This record gives sequence, structure tokens and C-alpha cells, in this order.
Amino acid sequence: MSGISRRKLFGLGAAGVAAAGAGTLAVRSLPGEDATTHAAATSDAVPFYGEHQAGIVTPAQDRLHFVAFDVTTKDRAELVDLLQSWTAAAARMTQGQEAGAFGAVGGVPEAPPDDTGEALGLPASGLTLTIGFGPTLFDERFGLAGRKPKALADLPKFPGDALLPELSGGDLCVQACAHDPQVAVHAIRNLARIGFGRVSVRYSQLGFGRTSSTSRAQATPRNLMGFKDGTANLKLEDTAMLGDHLWVAAEDGADDGADDGADWLTGGSYLVTRKIRMHIETWDRTSLAEQEAIIGRTKGEGAAHGSAKEFDEPDFTRKGPDGESLIADVAHVRLAHPSSHGGVRMLRRGYNFVDGSDGLGRLDAGLFFISYQRDAHRQFVPVQLALARQDVLNEYIKHVSSGLFAVPPGVRDAGDYWGRALFS
Amino acid sequence: MSGISRRKLFGLGAAGVAAAGAGTLAVRSLPGEDATTHAAATSDAVPFYGEHQAGIVTPAQDRLHFVAFDVTTKDRAELVDLLQSWTAAAARMTQGQEAGAFGAVGGVPEAPPDDTGEALGLPASGLTLTIGFGPTLFDERFGLAGRKPKALADLPKFPGDALLPELSGGDLCVQACAHDPQVAVHAIRNLARIGFGRVSVRYSQLGFGRTSSTSRAQATPRNLMGFKDGTANLKLEDTAMLGDHLWVAAEDGADDGADDGADWLTGGSYLVTRKIRMHIETWDRTSLAEQEAIIGRTKGEGAAHGSAKEFDEPDFTRKGPDGESLIADVAHVRLAHPSSHGGVRMLRRGYNFVDGSDGLGRLDAGLFFISYQRDAHRQFVPVQLALARQDVLNEYIKHVSSGLFAVPPGVRDAGDYWGRALFS
Ligand code: HEM
Ligand code: HEM
Repeated sequence: MSGISRRKLFGLGAAGVAAAGAGTLAVRSLPGEDATTHAAATSDAVPFYGEHQAGIVTPAQDRLHFVAFDVTTKDRAELVDLLQSWTAAAARMTQGQEAGAFGAVGGVPEAPPDDTGEALGLPASGLTLTIGFGPTLFDERFGLAGRKPKALADLPKFPGDALLPELSGGDLCVQACAHDPQVAVHAIRNLARIGFGRVSVRYSQLGFGRTSSTSRAQATPRNLMGFKDGTANLKLEDTAMLGDHLWVAAEDGADDGADDGADWLTGGSYLVTRKIRMHIETWDRTSLAEQEAIIGRTKGEGAAHGSAKEFDEPDFTRKGPDGESLIADVAHVRLAHPSSHGGVRMLRRGYNFVDGSDGLGRLDAGLFFISYQRDAHRQFVPVQLALARQDVLNEYIKHVSSGLFAVPPGVRDAGDYWGRALFS
Repeated sequence: MSGISRRKLFGLGAAGVAAAGAGTLAVRSLPGEDATTHAAATSDAVPFYGEHQAGIVTPAQDRLHFVAFDVTTKDRAELVDLLQSWTAAAARMTQGQEAGAFGAVGGVPEAPPDDTGEALGLPASGLTLTIGFGPTLFDERFGLAGRKPKALADLPKFPGDALLPELSGGDLCVQACAHDPQVAVHAIRNLARIGFGRVSVRYSQLGFGRTSSTSRAQATPRNLMGFKDGTANLKLEDTAMLGDHLWVAAEDGADDGADDGADWLTGGSYLVTRKIRMHIETWDRTSLAEQEAIIGRTKGEGAAHGSAKEFDEPDFTRKGPDGESLIADVAHVRLAHPSSHGGVRMLRRGYNFVDGSDGLGRLDAGLFFISYQRDAHRQFVPVQLALARQDVLNEYIKHVSSGLFAVPPGVRDAGDYWGRALFS
């Protein structure tokens, strides 16, 4: 139905509507608020421009909306144009503004609003938007095959994987994190709106609670198994380690592991997503002793067995009176610990999800696992291989989706855009 | 796998585990917190006992986890026992305590915890748990046929309905609302756990943002069409109207509309749920003028056309210079307004949802509509009939699930339980 006929149907002239909207600020302001008070309300804004993208070492916000897109245009210029529009909208939204300059209530009444409006009146809420490029983006369509980093090779199939292709992969992904889910949903929805005709949503995932800490200033949250998650994580404050384990370094030509891929990715990272369904009903009927043995930490305090406090270093050598290791050989924290994998670490940043029920009387719930690392094949892969082979947790979980994305470095300023170095 | 063999596998004695858990309070306390500071942390608790169930006029919390259960036991005594156990757990959880006295980290290590643990350390977060009984509960199974209120007759089929039976109905429902989704999810999950073997989850729905205000003290939130929702709602402060429109009154034998059903329901209410999928991509390509005409209010301020401010009473008689009504004849707020239906009102308490994507490149998002009223057939039904027949909004929405539940009165004290009057 055309805009004209609909307006005619309702007998509403453009003038009347414009008047009704007059005086409303184009920025995402609280009703009755001027620009000054609005600035105060957005003091929880995370800077958008920088060396690295926000949303990685940024202290993990409470809520997630993750989306993977398929690029539907075949035109490289259109894709670049989209990335530029997205970057501009992201720069605005992360600062608590509407996606476009005219917002939901300004501009031309005959035109669709350039913001969908559901975040009007809400502050920035710590929103970060982090883009990633999937392996398929580097196929023949956009002339990027020569720019594909080695480390963006597909992840191997792991034992026990039950991946749904329609919930895996994607040409592009955007991770939106915020304290307020309405703000995270709004951001992804507006990116999808801007991308109409050029991308389509492949899958999207809401996470309602963080399962990780990425800063020592944060309390450790709990995952849906009821355990503290994120205790032994790579954190914002571990500045020295971030260079070794998180950020892609510049190529130097030597094959020493410091070559992480492609020049355009310097200062970026690799993102792995795994949607892990939990059989929570089975877990809930498992004894406390078993649960704690499987994880290798206590449920209450989160201390490694044999240690008193959450942040005490696990001692994997300690044995009980029966001569058995206090931390079982197949306990999750032992299998995943850096000491089992030549020191590799990753930054985990996952979220709890509940997607309703599964039609079999059970909640469809689990962990949307997210990790960032300098090279997923050297970090995520060996750890996940060990877990997939030996972790007793596997009796209670199922990996149903998987994604690997190259996460470009940060946008430097308003003249820059997501992926500029890749496309130029 | 039995608890014994698993513990043996891990070489963990019960003694060691008990020691690790020692000193941890059974209440849902923050680590290192004593009972006093814990009490302070739960000052956002909503009282559980009272004349009416909480979660109806309670100022709408930010997050929802709604669940419908099928009762799988055929034994009336087992069902009553379940309702008693649920009531006890609900009384605890709404006050910020764990679902059972021993919690996730107390009790017997050989036994499953009597709380799943993911809300350990979190305050009550305004949690309310509201139970409802569906029409099917009154079939032959539990001898309740004679107690079924007239007004619990099935809702009619409405034009345009595209209901999925597996997401509709249910013998029992529980609406969990809280400021923190982790707390709402935890509560439903623990009720499901307690109900294992007696009920199974029919469907469950997360709502991430409220779309309604139920108190004049609350700012009006926005739904996913970007409009303020809840402006003209029945509210907590409308005490006189609550008796007329919300609470089921005592039977007096006269057939004057004051007889609302069955004695056991006095002080209760009727709950309608409608999962309404929005075609948000289509909506987002609709002009601002059309959007505002369809709703009958402005997008920014939320004022009815012809009025200046959100809370100004709509004037349905005002015409524009072209002689047409300022509020269109088929505008949503006109079709739904009490003056179009002999004065009937309802208390709306819905939530925004995003359930990922639909496999066709679009977000699977919309409104999980919830309304409470004294008689759904006299209140919800005529309004929904008018909307289903005439609302231009129908081009942008689809009703995919429906539920009707009789919501019993409040639990009076620790000796009472959900539905006692029905079962005695
Ligand atoms: C549903 C699945 C999973 C659950 C419930 C889970 C739970 C946990 C818990 C409770 C801890 C201990 C607390 C902490 O240090 O954060 C932990 C640690 C860890 N997990 Fe997982 N995890 C899961 C999947 C994974 C996956 C797929 C990976 C990577 C392949 C992984 C890697 C790690 C690492 C590296 C640690 C830290 C080990 C250490 O250094 O002590 N986890 N996990
Ligand atoms: C996705 C579907 C729907 C959307 C987007 C929607 C949106 C809105 C909006 C924006 C308003 C104006 C603000 C307010 O007073 O709250 C409103 C009012 C209202 N809506 Fe809806 N609504 C939807 C479905 C329904 C349904 C199914 C019913 C009941 C059958 C309903 C009943 C009402 C009522 C009673 C009012 C208040 C009218 C008045 O007294 O002015 N709505 N709705």
C-alpha cells in the first residue's frame, strides 16, 4: 500500500502530522529533556571510535542481541556503502542517539522514519556494536578471496557436534551488547532495516544474562548450570596478555605464530560463537557433588577443589585422602585450563539464553558461548577438541550452532568505517 | 548415571564436598554477606501473600518469563501436592531466597540441589509469580468439571487468527515478572524442576521489555512499533475501577454481570495471552504519517491526534480542515477505546519479544500481549473482535498463540496455597 493512499485513507494531511511532531529533538532524548540533560543521560555511553572495536574487552554488559547476516547483494560497491551506513548508524546509536539524523519523529512524514523508535527516551545503556566478517564473505562474490586470512579457515567438526547449518555461519555478524535489552534489540533491528535489500537476517540470538566477566571490577555472574562463569577469564586489566592472546598483530613475514593473517586485520581479533543447548532438566537431577566434580569448582564460592576462594589459582596436583586428584582428570576447568594447552587463553564473553521450550516438555535453554582470540585455530580449537573428547559436561550439553568471524580493528574516526582496510 | 558411580568416578568423598560448601548460607545470599545485609538486598521484594496475587496491579516489571504447563499426572492428590510445593517455593523465591531450604549449596551432596543456583547472589528483583488455571484443567481428570466458571469458556476464533496449538492453551500457566531476567528465568525453571514427573512445559516465552505501565508512577514504555504503549491502561491507582473491571466479585445469584463465575475465584481475575508476531520489516518501511494514523497517536509524544500531551483524553469528535476525523475511524486507539465498547476496560501487561529469526531473513519479533480482566468474554473479546475486523494494524501483525486462564485470588498466609479454594 503506498504512503499516499494510506494517508488519504486516514484523511491526515502531512502538515498536521508535522505539527504534532514539532519540537521533538531528533536525538534519542527523554520527553521534555533538552540537549544538556540528554548528554547526562548518555554518560553510560561506551566510546565508539578507537584502536580496537568496543564490545570485546569492554566490561561485559548484561544483555546480548547477536545477529548473523547473509549478504544478498552481489555488488561490492553496495556492500561498501552498507558498511559505511552501518558505521554511521552505530556511531550514533552507541552514543544514545537515534540511528539516523531525523529519528523516529523528525524528518519527512511521507517517508519511513530513519529510526524505529522503540529506544526513544532510553540512554546509551553501555551499547556496543561489534562487527565480524565470516569465511563466506571471502568467496568469489566481492573479490576478497585474496584477502582471506589463513586463520579464517573453517573450524573443524568436533566430536558430538549437532550443528544446525541455518543457525551457523553467516557472511557478517554483529554483536550488540547493552545493559538494556531494548537498546540491544533496537540497534540490531535498525541495522537490519538499513540493510534491507542488501542483507538478510540469517539467525539472531538474544542472551538475557552475561555468563562472563571481562574486567576485575565485575562480580562473576552465573550460567544456567548455576556455576560462576568467567572466573579464570582473560580480562581487560591483563594488558600484557591481551597482545599475546587477543589482538591480531601486524604481519612480519616470519612464520612464528606472530603472523596472524592479513594486514587489514591488525588490531582486530577472531570471534567464535557456539550455541550450546543444555539439558537442564537432567542437570537439575544431578547431585551437587557430581555437578561440582564435573566443573572442578564448588557451586557456592566457585573455588577450585582444594582451594578456599574463587580467585585462588587451581592446584591440579593436590590429591585427596583416597589418592585421587581433588580436581578430577576430566573436570571442565582442568581440560580447559591454559596449562593443558601450552598456555593458550581466550576471552570468553557468552550469554545465557532461553528460547522458549522444545516441544518435548523442556526449556530450550543454554549458553550462547562467545570467545575472542588472536587465532581461533590455535586457541579455541585445541580447547574445544579436548572438551568434546573428554568433558563429562557433554552428557548435559549439545553444540547446536557455530560461527567463526574475523573482527576488524576499531573505527578510527568519522571518516573511517567498519572494514575500510579490507575493501581498500 | 547414578550419583554413587559418578562420585566414585571422580574420587570425591561427600565429606570433602560438604566442607567446601560449609559456611554458605542457605538463603540466596551474596558471597560474604550475612543475613542482615542480605535483608537489605531484598528490599525490592514484592509481598507474596495478600488478597490478590501479585503480578497484576504490581507496577509492571521490566522482564517476563511466561510458561504454560500440561499436567501429566492423572492423580488429583499429586496435583494438589504440586500446587502446595510450588506455593512454598514461590513464597521463598519472590522474597529473594532460594527455591528450597537447602538451596544450591547446602543440604546433602548426594542429592540434587533444591535450587538450581543461577540466581545465587541476586536480590529479589521485584519478582512476582502469578498462577492461572486453563479451561482444560477442568476436564474429567481431576474432578473439577463442576467448578469451571462460565467465563472460562474457550475464546472464540477471531478473523485472521493464525494460532499454533502447541503455543496455545495449557492446563496451568505461571507468569514470572522481575527486573532481572535471570531471576524470572530462575523462578520458572525451578517450578518446572519441582514439577518434574507431574507437569511438562507446554511452551515458554521470554519478554525482554515491558510494553505497558500499570501505575501512574511509571513512565510509559515503547513497544516494537516504536510507540508508547500503556498510556490509557487500567492502573493500580484506579482503585474504584479495579473492582468493576479487574477483580472477580463474589457470586450473589443474580444474573446481572456481577456473577463472574465460581466462588473459588472471588478476588481473582482472568488472564488472556496473545502472542502477536509483528512484520516489523514492513512496518519499518511505512511512513511516519501512516504509522501515526494507524495507531491514532503521535510517535514521539504519544498524544492522541488533536491533543497536545500523552495523557490528554483523546477527543474522537475533532475533525481536520478536510472534514475528516483527526483520529481515523479505524485507528487502533478508537477501535480499542472503552467508549466503543460500552465502557469496558482491561489491564494490559504485555512484553516485547524477539525469538531469533524466522528463516526467511526476518526477525521473529512482536508483542506478547497480556491482559487481565474480570471477564474476558465481556472485555477482551469485544475489543479483539473489533480490532480483528477493522484494525489496519492487522496488515502488520499476526496472532500466533492464545491463552485464557482463571487466575485465583492471592495466597493468604503460609498455610494457604495456590488454588486451595478450588480443590477443597
Ligand atoms: C555449556 C557449556 C559450558 C559451561 C557450562 C562452562 C562452564 C564453565 C565454568 C563454570 C567454568 C569455571 C569458571 C571460570 O573460570 O570461568 C569454566 C571455565 C572455562 N571454560 Fe567453560 N563452560 C562451557 C563451555 C566451554 C567451551 C565451549 C569452552 C571453550 C572451548 C570453554 C572454555 C573454558 C575455559 C578456557 C575456562 C577457564 C579454565 C581455567 O583457566 O581455569 N568452556 N567453564
Ligand atoms: C501488536 C499489537 C498491538 C499493538 C502494537 C498495540 C499498540 C497500542 C498502542 C500504541 C496504544 C496506544 C497507547 C496506549 O493507550 O496504551 C494502544 C492502546 C490500546 N490497545 Fe493496543 N496494541 C496491540 C494489540 C492490542 C490488542 C490485541 C488489544 C486487545 C484486544 C489492545 C487493546 C488496547 C487498548 C484497550 C488500548 C487503549 C485504548 C484507549 O483507551 O485509548 N491492543 N495499543
